[in-house]
Amino acid sequence: MKIDILSLFPEMFGGILSSSIIGKAVEKNILDVSLTNFRDFTTDRQNHVDDYPYGGGAGMLLQAQPIYDALADVNEKRGSLGRVILLDPAGRKFDQKAAEELAKEPQLTFICGHYEGYDERIKRLVTDEFSIGDFVLTGGELGAMVMIDATVRLLPEVLGNSASAPDDSFSSGLLEYPQYTRPADFRGLKVPDVLLSGNHQKIAEWRQKEALYKTYQRRPDLLEERQLSEKEKHWISLFKQKRS
Amino acid sequence: MKIDILSLFPEMFGGILSSSIIGKAVEKNILDVSLTNFRDFTTDRQNHVDDYPYGGGAGMLLQAQPIYDALADVNEKRGSLGRVILLDPAGRKFDQKAAEELAKEPQLTFICGHYEGYDERIKRLVTDEFSIGDFVLTGGELGAMVMIDATVRLLPEVLGNSASAPDDSFSSGLLEYPQYTRPADFRGLKVPDVLLSGNHQKIAEWRQKEALYKTYQRRPDLLEERQLSEKEKHWISLFKQKRS
Repeated sequence: MKIDILSLFPEMFGGILSSSIIGKAVEKNILDVSLTNFRDFTTDRQNHVDDYPYGGGAGMLLQAQPIYDALADVNEKRGSLGRVILLDPAGRKFDQKAAEELAKEPQLTFICGHYEGYDERIKRLVTDEFSIGDFVLTGGELGAMVMIDATVRLLPEVLGNSASAPDDSFSSGLLEYPQYTRPADFRGLKVPDVLLSGNHQKIAEWRQKEALYKTYQRRPDLLEERQLSEKEKHWISLFKQKRS
Repeated sequence: MKIDILSLFPEMFGGILSSSIIGKAVEKNILDVSLTNFRDFTTDRQNHVDDYPYGGGAGMLLQAQPIYDALADVNEKRGSLGRVILLDPAGRKFDQKAAEELAKEPQLTFICGHYEGYDERIKRLVTDEFSIGDFVLTGGELGAMVMIDATVRLLPEVLGNSASAPDDSFSSGLLEYPQYTRPADFRGLKVPDVLLSGNHQKIAEWRQKEALYKTYQRRPDLLEERQLSEKEKHWISLFKQKRS
C-alpha cells in the first residue's frame, strides 16, 4: 500500500513510522509511506500557508494554493493519488468498517490541516472527509496516524499472529470478555476458576456471557445492531433481573 | 499539568512531544510530561511483559506485575498518580466533554497497552477506561496522544489565540460553516459574495445557516440534542423542502 501524508509537521510522524507495527510494515515493503511538507509549495514570499478568514472571525485558515500544488506534485511522482482523505471534524466518522474498506485500497493520500480550518476550495480535490471522533485536535496529524494504524494492521502479513485481528472488539460486534494471564494468584487477586478448569466448552460459554454482559452494561447501542441468539436473549433477561 | 505515560514504546511519543502545541506547552512549563517504559519493571528473566491467556485463545496479554510496579514507581516519584487512565476499546467514549473534564485535573497517568489485551487485574488500579473510537489500534499510544492533545490545547495559555478554542466544531453543538481565505478568486473558484460584502449581520446569518445545513446533512444526531431557535426551525423546514 502506498501512503502519502501532506503535513506542516512531518516530524510528528517520526515516532510512529519507526516503531511498532507500521515501522515493521515499512521494513517488510508492505507499506510505502512518503511525507510532504506542503509549506515547501507555497508561493508566498514569507512562506505563509495561512491567511485571515473572509468575513472575519478568530484564527487562521489554510490556503488552497499550497495544498493544490503539493497534491499535483505527489500525483506526478506517484502517477496517482488514490483516495484523498481530509481529516475534518465534520467528516464521516472513522470506524472499524471504514478501516476494513481502506485496507483494500492500493493508495491513500492524507491531508493534515492545522490552524482554525481550511479554505473550503481545498475540498474540491478530496474524495473522503473523515473524523476520528467528536473532539478537537490541534491538527490532522494524529487523526491520520490513527487511521493509518487501524488500516495498516489489517493488511495481510502485517500482524505476526494473523489470528489476532478478527477476534478483536468490534469485529465480533461485542466488547471483549475479561482476560487473565499468569500468575493465577497475583498478590491475592485470583483468576476465575473456570479459566483454569480445562473445560473448553465451559470456558467458551463463560467468555460469551461475559462479553455480552460487558456490552450490555457499557455499550447497549452495539446490541441494538445485533441479531441476538436465543441464548443471548436469555442471558440478557438475567442481566435485567440482576440490575433491578 | 503533570502527565505520566506508561508504554512499551516511549519513542513513539517523540514526534508529538517535541513539535506543535504539546511541545510548546512543555517549553512554557504548563505541561510536565514523563514517559515510563514498564518493561523496565518486569521481574521476568527474559524481560517479558506478556504471557498466554488462561483458558486459551489467540494473542498475548499484558501481565499485571510490570504495570503494578511501574505505577508504584510513578506514585513514589510524583507523590501521587492523579487520574489513572487505561486506553481500552471497551472504555468510555472520549469526546470534547471528557477533554474539558480532564483539562481541569492537575495530574493524569496513562497506561498504554499493546498485544491482544490486558490481564483484568490491571483494571483494579485504574480510575478511568477510555476509548477514542470504535476501531482497533495496535496499541494504546495513539489513543493517549489524541487524549493528551485534545486536553492540553484547552489549558489556559496553551493556544496562542485564546479566541480560537470556543469557536470550534462541537463546542457550539454544530459543525463548522465553510470558510474561505485569500485569494477571492483561486483558479476560477470564487469566494461567496456575502463574505466579501462587509455586512457583518448578513455574514453572521449566512454562517449560522451554513453551519446548521452542514449539521443537518451530515450529523443530524447533533441536532437532536440541541434546543433549536425559531429561526433554526424555519431553516430546517426549508432544508427539508430542498431535499424532497
